[in-house]
Amino acid sequence: MRSERVRSWWGWGFEDAAVGGEERAALLARLPPHWVTDELPVPRVGDLDLRAPRVRPPDSVGGVCTVHPHVRAAHTYGKAYRDVIRALHGDLGAVPDVVAYPETEAQIVDLLDWAGGANVAVIPYGGGSSVVGGVEYRGNAHDAVLSLDLTRMDRVLEVDRTSRAALIQAGALGPVLESQLAPYGYTLRHFPQSFEFSTLGGWLATRAGGHFAMRHTHIDDFVEAMRVVSPSGTSQTRRLPASGAGPSPDRLFLGSEGTLGVITQAWLRLQDRPAHKASRAVSFGDLATGLQAVRAIAQSGLDPSNCRLLDEAEAAVNAGRTDGRAVLVLGFESADHPVDGALARGLEIARDHGGSVDARSTQDTVGDWRSAFLRMPYVRDALVRSGVLVETFETACTWDVAADVCDSVRSGVRAATAEICGEPGLLTARVTHVYPDGVAPYFTVIAPARAGGEVQTWDQIKAAASDILVRLGASITHHHAVGRDHLPWYEAQRPEPFGYILRAAKNSLDPQGILNPGVLFD
Amino acid sequence: MRSERVRSWWGWGFEDAAVGGEERAALLARLPPHWVTDELPVPRVGDLDLRAPRVRPPDSVGGVCTVHPHVRAAHTYGKAYRDVIRALHGDLGAVPDVVAYPETEAQIVDLLDWAGGANVAVIPYGGGSSVVGGVEYRGNAHDAVLSLDLTRMDRVLEVDRTSRAALIQAGALGPVLESQLAPYGYTLRHFPQSFEFSTLGGWLATRAGGHFAMRHTHIDDFVEAMRVVSPSGTSQTRRLPASGAGPSPDRLFLGSEGTLGVITQAWLRLQDRPAHKASRAVSFGDLATGLQAVRAIAQSGLDPSNCRLLDEAEAAVNAGRTDGRAVLVLGFESADHPVDGALARGLEIARDHGGSVDARSTQDTVGDWRSAFLRMPYVRDALVRSGVLVETFETACTWDVAADVCDSVRSGVRAATAEICGEPGLLTARVTHVYPDGVAPYFTVIAPARAGGEVQTWDQIKAAASDILVRLGASITHHHAVGRDHLPWYEAQRPEPFGYILRAAKNSLDPQGILNPGVLFD
Repeated sequence: MRSERVRSWWGWGFEDAAVGGEERAALLARLPPHWVTDELPVPRVGDLDLRAPRVRPPDSVGGVCTVHPHVRAAHTYGKAYRDVIRALHGDLGAVPDVVAYPETEAQIVDLLDWAGGANVAVIPYGGGSSVVGGVEYRGNAHDAVLSLDLTRMDRVLEVDRTSRAALIQAGALGPVLESQLAPYGYTLRHFPQSFEFSTLGGWLATRAGGHFAMRHTHIDDFVEAMRVVSPSGTSQTRRLPASGAGPSPDRLFLGSEGTLGVITQAWLRLQDRPAHKASRAVSFGDLATGLQAVRAIAQSGLDPSNCRLLDEAEAAVNAGRTDGRAVLVLGFESADHPVDGALARGLEIARDHGGSVDARSTQDTVGDWRSAFLRMPYVRDALVRSGVLVETFETACTWDVAADVCDSVRSGVRAATAEICGEPGLLTARVTHVYPDGVAPYFTVIAPARAGGEVQTWDQIKAAASDILVRLGASITHHHAVGRDHLPWYEAQRPEPFGYILRAAKNSLDPQGILNPGVLFD
Repeated sequence: MRSERVRSWWGWGFEDAAVGGEERAALLARLPPHWVTDELPVPRVGDLDLRAPRVRPPDSVGGVCTVHPHVRAAHTYGKAYRDVIRALHGDLGAVPDVVAYPETEAQIVDLLDWAGGANVAVIPYGGGSSVVGGVEYRGNAHDAVLSLDLTRMDRVLEVDRTSRAALIQAGALGPVLESQLAPYGYTLRHFPQSFEFSTLGGWLATRAGGHFAMRHTHIDDFVEAMRVVSPSGTSQTRRLPASGAGPSPDRLFLGSEGTLGVITQAWLRLQDRPAHKASRAVSFGDLATGLQAVRAIAQSGLDPSNCRLLDEAEAAVNAGRTDGRAVLVLGFESADHPVDGALARGLEIARDHGGSVDARSTQDTVGDWRSAFLRMPYVRDALVRSGVLVETFETACTWDVAADVCDSVRSGVRAATAEICGEPGLLTARVTHVYPDGVAPYFTVIAPARAGGEVQTWDQIKAAASDILVRLGASITHHHAVGRDHLPWYEAQRPEPFGYILRAAKNSLDPQGILNPGVLFD
């Protein structure tokens, strides 16, 4: 069942899917020539000066552990720009000492026992797609670091057809779990951009958001029950469609980012595969006009599956549009009933708010954008290797501040980029998720990097963006999680008494402080 | 703005709405004559031997406090059967020493400060409609008891038309907040059976469930932000439509039942008033057949507003049906678009699963049931005064065990009632909320009471029911909360590590243990 293709140790996805040749040439031809440098070579792992493992797991758990340099290198960082560029520079200072691939929950318990006694930090690791420093050890309070890779626990253990739910192990990557559900005619229908290279456990730990614009898109809402192994014991919640019995235990583990325990399996609500689909593209004079239409659609109760609004720059870069208009991709899906009526009403609302149906056929626009979406992380890597800074960040806010957030971020980040990189670069915006009371804007920055100072460059731009978000009342993240990179802004956003509670929870479940230290807590 | 009608101190609602005269006679005529006793008189509060207040609040907070006997008596219990019967018997041993009606958050802070120093238990009190002992002090670890009545903080402070959300004080009763939203054309659309006599803060603290069968029905899902005053500080979350920044703070306070802090206000998502409605009644040979249809509808993505399935006994008692069939009330609502197509498809699914459209006009059946629903607590009080035991309990479970839960509860509770009361009484069942992966069944027990032993009688029947629920994997409650009455079964259901977390949270925010002691924790 497992893929034989080789995963990149330094960048996104499979090595054989990397952007190269004509695709790379065409990509670079679209950039200002002075942004592009010679292609950075990928270091050979054998040439890297990896720190020797500082610890040796006991024989009882040693069988599932490895100190193979390639594996350790691949588990050092997530997949943010700052991760990729550091790996390309051969900067693997945070390399874990050991990587474990447990196959049973008992092995996880044993590994945690050993780590607690040996003061070894344990970093739960799924697909490694964090873009917020979620899987990278920083600091020096521990004697060694263990990366706990869950991907050998990737089975769908049970399917309950009556309740349309499945018990799935946390280490299943998106395609791995979908391929096991397909024979039943079901889908989890959770498609984050990282789908191929992220796991159920990672989605749960970080409150991942899927591809769809409304409703069944946050993994939070799919959870019937969860199982979490902590140093203080294992928590198993009861399978329930809903409950009013005290605060939700699952909701406290959702978003705990590996700091309270290791999620080992969960019961998830499934969907029937959609049988009815309808979608159209609508264009608007600018993003602000499009936002008005999207708000009206989001408040209509129509609940579109897709309601992606791309600003003019995003539409140009990723949907091949050259007319300078913002574009909305509006789509509906159902496994049970036709959705043409819903689409018609959605388009009517869009027209009432200044939208016009795109002259190009819908399928082209939708298709263009979707393939670009899935290809984007590979493209990012190719650009990074050619001296270009490419990174994204995202947020959520209520509608009353949405236009201000989008405008302030766009102007503020352009100004910060101009100051730091010498020119404003390209900033694109899109709306990925919509709600009756608000919206989740997503931004991409593309600019010439400062050779040798790439990480600091990005950190300065990101800090400027984060300051704006938190000042305007937006969230520091909608679905990328807190990790280590967002910590200062998260602390500004989180109510202080809830901070006490989280810390008390941490002390209860992880009294030795070995679980993903540095995430969520200072 | 406030009602001048007199609230009952011992039972449900307004005194002038009590069941009497011909309505009472007709009600009792439907019961076996040997169940009915002489009408229990309502004691005069002045005749009750209320314990003298053991504490006197300092002048700084004394202005909002009262020791008026009628007020203290009315704040002693919730509105469960065991509460009403004890009040009728003049058993007010749990009477609070003082009742406070704060008008500002600063006064709440002062009251908590004083209570912490004086070892006074503080019981946050909204509408007092708890049926699980949620507002009743038990034990003797405190020197006195303060009932903290929030109903003078009942204003809609702000309406954000753009985001369709409002900032509402926690002490607003249902009609009080709806009347303030109506001029804007909005509704919170949260209609629990207790609607008239429960508050926003109570709904949030207990994770209340509204009238509607699917989607916008749990108060949890309406919350944008919450403000909670605890002895360790005030927690204010940020208004967000969604967020992936750590575990949700709001979701930990939702369901905390006054043990972690006093909810003072919240930003809530609003709805436009529905402009399109359509509903029909469908009957089935029995409850099990109806459950199959309801499951198919719940998994269709049609999301009916109403999908209430009444078993044959419930249909007979509360919808006036005499044909021995189960009946489903299926309804759709929208503020934006017609719902006839959705209803047609829903009815098609119901027919495919053995349903037949009721011969009576839909409006009659729906109307009959709805008025009976709202009148039910008053009817309950009249029955209690006539020697009849009447009580309800509810649960939630996944579909795979739904039929077993319904059957086992019905047979198990009939058997328990027969053993305890000498005859099986009447047990009715209905489905109040449905989910793609499960259902919330709701049961009503009507039986002859054992004069003088009413509380013990009910407690034994309830224990039998609760044992069945927890054994079969159902929840001890879907929307009635844990309170004090559900504690043993809640502890069996709650994962032990989450118990550690809750206790740690409690110690952090309420280190003196004054907030609603005995709820959620042993």
